[in-house]
Amino acid sequence: MTSQAPTRAYRRLSVEERRSQLLEAALSLFATRAPEDISLDDVAEAAGVSRPLVYRYFPGGKQQLYEAALRSAAEELEHCFAEPPDGPLTRRLANALDRYLAFVDQHDAGFSALLQGGSVVETSRTTAIVDGVRRAAAEHILSHLAVEAPGNRLRMTVRMWITAVEAASLIWLDEEKEPPLDELRDWLVEQFVACLVATAARDEQTAAVVRAALTLESADGPMGSLARRVLPVVGDAAHLL
Amino acid sequence: MTSQAPTRAYRRLSVEERRSQLLEAALSLFATRAPEDISLDDVAEAAGVSRPLVYRYFPGGKQQLYEAALRSAAEELEHCFAEPPDGPLTRRLANALDRYLAFVDQHDAGFSALLQGGSVVETSRTTAIVDGVRRAAAEHILSHLAVEAPGNRLRMTVRMWITAVEAASLIWLDEEKEPPLDELRDWLVEQFVACLVATAARDEQTAAVVRAALTLESADGPMGSLARRVLPVVGDAAHLL
Repeated sequence: MTSQAPTRAYRRLSVEERRSQLLEAALSLFATRAPEDISLDDVAEAAGVSRPLVYRYFPGGKQQLYEAALRSAAEELEHCFAEPPDGPLTRRLANALDRYLAFVDQHDAGFSALLQGGSVVETSRTTAIVDGVRRAAAEHILSHLAVEAPGNRLRMTVRMWITAVEAASLIWLDEEKEPPLDELRDWLVEQFVACLVATAARDEQTAAVVRAALTLESADGPMGSLARRVLPVVGDAAHLL
Repeated sequence: MTSQAPTRAYRRLSVEERRSQLLEAALSLFATRAPEDISLDDVAEAAGVSRPLVYRYFPGGKQQLYEAALRSAAEELEHCFAEPPDGPLTRRLANALDRYLAFVDQHDAGFSALLQGGSVVETSRTTAIVDGVRRAAAEHILSHLAVEAPGNRLRMTVRMWITAVEAASLIWLDEEKEPPLDELRDWLVEQFVACLVATAARDEQTAAVVRAALTLESADGPMGSLARRVLPVVGDAAHLL
């Protein structure tokens, strides 16, 4: 009986469906364990197929399967960033972060293994895939900032924040997912606002972006809340003005 | 004549001196070219010794030499962070950043190759060495913030900024070292202040750190300058309060 299920499945699935099924099985394994600890047998077992079948679809073995799974995860991640260009910027950013952090939460072990580096499956190709996701994230954010030709400072600020979000995600996984996701999300949005305001202090283009963004924010939104909490912290610094 | 110089040098140098000489030669090669493009012959030639001699000191070949060179660069980097605990925090941070950015400037190609990942010489050991430098940087900063037991939020903020500085360094190398070093340094200090203030808005420990730090700052220092440049950017946001 046990050998019959896969045989029946062989007939039912198209090449594309079979490939997707194997990728999905691989992705859920790579998501919860380090690539070092996963064999093609594990993938075959998780997908309910034979090892030779996995090799037929991925003749390059585990490395090829890992890269294909990573590419499919990267596509999924890039979908997270899509957000309609309406409403306050902080709300749009919070929505995208919600989806991104849910992805991190679901793919925790794989996410850590991938970004911490030094993994046996890491190659210049896997690095390029990850860099592609970072670039896509930066493009999405810059498009929401609605700048025709973003300058060096603005682009650098966005990319620095994206790296900081990655670092925060890794630390968050490492610290047993503390603080809770919605608090982490709000905090990361506030960090973005802070970095943007600091850059605005030395870059006219960024200053224009911040001024335009502020007009869309309201007192009962995240920016109002941040402003009211920041004032008591810096309130005693009149000697700096 | 040409073969005599190395022979003479063989006699003159102690084992430790010879090892240092080889490491220095390797480091300056790894600093200006990607590890992929460097052979042991190049290292031997740069040090003015024979290839077998390099192998005698580093029987593990290029990988071992690379890791030893990386370890020595990591030590050099950690020295950059040492700064006496006196005066305004922004000045201390600017001093340490000056040394760090000078290191990045000098080791540009090697720095990029190392941190961009996917290099053939990257292993879990090289990753651990780089992580050690990051941890040392975080410890230095936290010690300057003079907190007995830094909490999750404060530590996370410091580590996020360190990652952002790394990202900024890579982008800076990629953008033909623009903006100039002193401007990049001042901007990174301002980003640190901004991130710390944003975290202070939701963390009492960080708020206490910011308040104490502000009393050491003056109107003609970087914090005064930042405050005066930020006010006109956020000045129209009274509707948020």
